[in-house]
Amino acid sequence: MSFSEFYERKFLVLLSALVTSRYNLPNMLIKDLGEFGTIEVINQLISSSRSKEMDSVQHLVIDSGDDSAGWSPHGTTELITTDTVVEDIHFTSESISWHDLGWKVLASNISDIASMGAYPSYAVVTLGLPPETEINDITELYTGMLSIANKYQVSIIGGDMVRSTQIFISITLTGTTSKEPLLRSTANAGDVIAVTGYLGGSAGGLRLIQQSVNVSQASQDYLLTAHRMPTPQVESGRVLVDCDIRTAMDISDGLADDLSKLCLASEVSATIYLNKVPTHSLVKSSFPETYIELALYGGEDYELLFTGNITAVNEAIQLLPEGACIIGEITDSTPGVISLVGEDGSERVATRQGWDHFT
Amino acid sequence: MSFSEFYERKFLVLLSALVTSRYNLPNMLIKDLGEFGTIEVINQLISSSRSKEMDSVQHLVIDSGDDSAGWSPHGTTELITTDTVVEDIHFTSESISWHDLGWKVLASNISDIASMGAYPSYAVVTLGLPPETEINDITELYTGMLSIANKYQVSIIGGDMVRSTQIFISITLTGTTSKEPLLRSTANAGDVIAVTGYLGGSAGGLRLIQQSVNVSQASQDYLLTAHRMPTPQVESGRVLVDCDIRTAMDISDGLADDLSKLCLASEVSATIYLNKVPTHSLVKSSFPETYIELALYGGEDYELLFTGNITAVNEAIQLLPEGACIIGEITDSTPGVISLVGEDGSERVATRQGWDHFT
Repeated sequence: MSFSEFYERKFLVLLSALVTSRYNLPNMLIKDLGEFGTIEVINQLISSSRSKEMDSVQHLVIDSGDDSAGWSPHGTTELITTDTVVEDIHFTSESISWHDLGWKVLASNISDIASMGAYPSYAVVTLGLPPETEINDITELYTGMLSIANKYQVSIIGGDMVRSTQIFISITLTGTTSKEPLLRSTANAGDVIAVTGYLGGSAGGLRLIQQSVNVSQASQDYLLTAHRMPTPQVESGRVLVDCDIRTAMDISDGLADDLSKLCLASEVSATIYLNKVPTHSLVKSSFPETYIELALYGGEDYELLFTGNITAVNEAIQLLPEGACIIGEITDSTPGVISLVGEDGSERVATRQGWDHFT
Repeated sequence: MSFSEFYERKFLVLLSALVTSRYNLPNMLIKDLGEFGTIEVINQLISSSRSKEMDSVQHLVIDSGDDSAGWSPHGTTELITTDTVVEDIHFTSESISWHDLGWKVLASNISDIASMGAYPSYAVVTLGLPPETEINDITELYTGMLSIANKYQVSIIGGDMVRSTQIFISITLTGTTSKEPLLRSTANAGDVIAVTGYLGGSAGGLRLIQQSVNVSQASQDYLLTAHRMPTPQVESGRVLVDCDIRTAMDISDGLADDLSKLCLASEVSATIYLNKVPTHSLVKSSFPETYIELALYGGEDYELLFTGNITAVNEAIQLLPEGACIIGEITDSTPGVISLVGEDGSERVATRQGWDHFT
């Protein structure tokens, strides 16, 4: 989930004020505001209409804006997240098989629960499909979903199936934790920043599919698996909580974009040292010129990005099942701004590349 | 939600066995099996893959197949339901405004929680939209959703927004109850059958929009409101639970279809007396020839259909905020078969008309 992310855009706040005070926004289209701008307008509308007396609001502990939202009626925190993919926008029939699509869309939801330090539990699955869809394709899709569901103890307990011209798959997943959930909004200047695993593999896989780059069989296997069957970091999320880490999110839109969102939510900035960003040797050898761009802006790695004091982060690194790397630190400059420091000490600001499909 | 509904279709069970034993279904398409046939194949796949050792399964108290699914980790039952509408399939820009669409799609989800005797709590909203969508339309949509959300204490706490050529709106809603949820599967032969409110109003409204029937202003207001801004029966659901009613569902696909689903889930049959089916005087006067067809097959009334022993049902009728009518009884004939008895005592079997958009 990515609601409420760009609070710094003053013009959107103004716009939202206009909306909620019932002025019209003549001829303004989603493609003018973009996904995050539109979501900001929606969020203002929601928060301005919400009554504090509502029973449900009283238990709400994590509102929209984090990887999952959560409520806590009796000690345990219940979480919910939702993620949708649309054919020709998020995937094509050439980029992924039905089986792997099933795996991947559930993986991306599980990742949003994992990044809260919680365990996933129940999923409902909505399919938008043309009547000409083959039943075999649907059983393949579910076989992929069920493989990852069983691996992470997720039960698919319902859903909806609707007719549509363009294929879409929408999953809503719940999760639960008895501990303090990991948030985006708790980073402090002075925290070190770390990531689990390697970055850029998924984007490398997509590039391989789109541009038929000539790489070794081992690289091909690594890159395509990273793109098509990513691994959500459920155990890593739990380890972070146990090490008293408070701040984390999953990397779905790319390190630079996601770290910027985390910084905006925490009203801080960050510095990243490019030579510390972890990239797999097969990504480096396949894309020697561009691997760092893939790692910074690629997205869909579903690794965890976390911050904390150096002691807690080092303790976590020792205990994380696949390790982690410290890549930089949280600073108190302009909220959301990410500085990239090269090996030669040169510094530049990360451009937001992101994945706004509307603009 | 409408998973697991047509268990009587032996050929589907056979087909599912083929699927789960990894045979192929060459060239079979969704339009060949229909929505419910395809869902049956999916359900077989899910249940055959599910391990009883899974933590989440151990708390599952209502699996797919009812209006909502539910789990009960610590006394309270948590419920989840999801419902999606697609442009030109479930609505058109002529049939409904953005405001009323927002109201209606959340109403249909709230109704699936109400029919379990539970209170709705948290919603996540996914919008599939073309980039050319006007921001004003989206704020109208949310204004409609928030009107009904606030009325029923629902908090919208997140969602997703994706680009798509065809507009769709998908909502997942949670609910909660500390009492025994109302199910579809608990009806017994000898139970009387009752419905709250009036039936056929929504279908009458749709007919008015599509065929410009000449009716009074009062009828027009009544019919269009019934179609565009239906009222979910949250309080009625609670009253039923308090009166020890165990069996209920909401009427979304029409009385005949929905009662047939309830009977299939309970492995019973039913008889309905046509002169007892409650239709509003404005529906009767607007459609004097066809009002009973609208009531039986129209759908989207979101009233509650319930069964129980005559004493409990009569007690409920006294206490329900808008009353209810006894319309027939549960019988022990072929599961799912609904007999319609006319005023002259003649009897016929209800044909399933349903809303399968795939066939």
